[in-house]
Amino acid sequence: MISREEHESAQAYTANELAAAGIELTDGERAEIEVADFGLGRLREIGLQLLVYVNTDRYCAKELVLYPLQMCPEHRHPPFEGSPGKEETFRCRRGTVELWMDGERIGLRPGEQLTIPPDTLHWFRAGDEGAVVSEFSSASRDDLDVFTDPRIVRAPQVEP
Amino acid sequence: MISREEHESAQAYTANELAAAGIELTDGERAEIEVADFGLGRLREIGLQLLVYVNTDRYCAKELVLYPLQMCPEHRHPPFEGSPGKEETFRCRRGTVELWMDGERIGLRPGEQLTIPPDTLHWFRAGDEGAVVSEFSSASRDDLDVFTDPRIVRAPQVEP
Repeated sequence: MISREEHESAQAYTANELAAAGIELTDGERAEIEVADFGLGRLREIGLQLLVYVNTDRYCAKELVLYPLQMCPEHRHPPFEGSPGKEETFRCRRGTVELWMDGERIGLRPGEQLTIPPDTLHWFRAGDEGAVVSEFSSASRDDLDVFTDPRIVRAPQVEP
Repeated sequence: MISREEHESAQAYTANELAAAGIELTDGERAEIEVADFGLGRLREIGLQLLVYVNTDRYCAKELVLYPLQMCPEHRHPPFEGSPGKEETFRCRRGTVELWMDGERIGLRPGEQLTIPPDTLHWFRAGDEGAVVSEFSSASRDDLDVFTDPRIVRAPQVEP
């Protein structure tokens, strides 16, 4: 459960970081920023902030924003409904991010990108200054993500 | 045919506009910026500058850059190989752009976006300050685009 205060603070941080990356949002989008603590209650350590621009049944585009040293834990995007699973490209916009995939560490700085094949375990963590990362992908179904840590609940629960 | 000088000048303009929008490129990407005059030889009036980040058989992401008042002429993305044709979302990042689709004019300012269904005629033109537009889409096959003006040749020819 994410407290109202933590949720608002994370949305404000995300909007500020996107603005600092030159990314303009509408007012409606600002309110739609998703704050995910993966049900672990340690947002600044394990969590992710997201804004989904578009998600059709064919493609998806999002911005991901991370606090300094915040980690998105290991997961994969499994096959579903005739799709081999989500294929995604991360492009670093601001700060730095380290990605781990197949036991390999890939560091991304602004302007650098990496494509992750479907159904492939990966995790990532921002550097000391946090990170803004654009994600381009096939259709996204976050509810189907398979996390290695069985305690994880992907859908954020925010204090009413 | 685009002259070497015009090509270099348009690539430099594009890189500068992307930088002004906070978008960082690698050196390799800078050299890959595509300058399309649609075979008409009137680049500043009818043309488009593009950088493709990724184009898999499932999704695509590009940046489009337009000179002030530059137009991308009317075209559609037809069905191919079992696909209903490219579906695309334009998101304005900098400047302004007007899009025409189904006889309707949609103006986009930074932070605003529009999704264009497959196989639907559309054209667009930048405002007085030019435009930077992110394009998120299903797989892109520019070589299959159908332009209304039969003189148009989509693949750019640059002076050797």
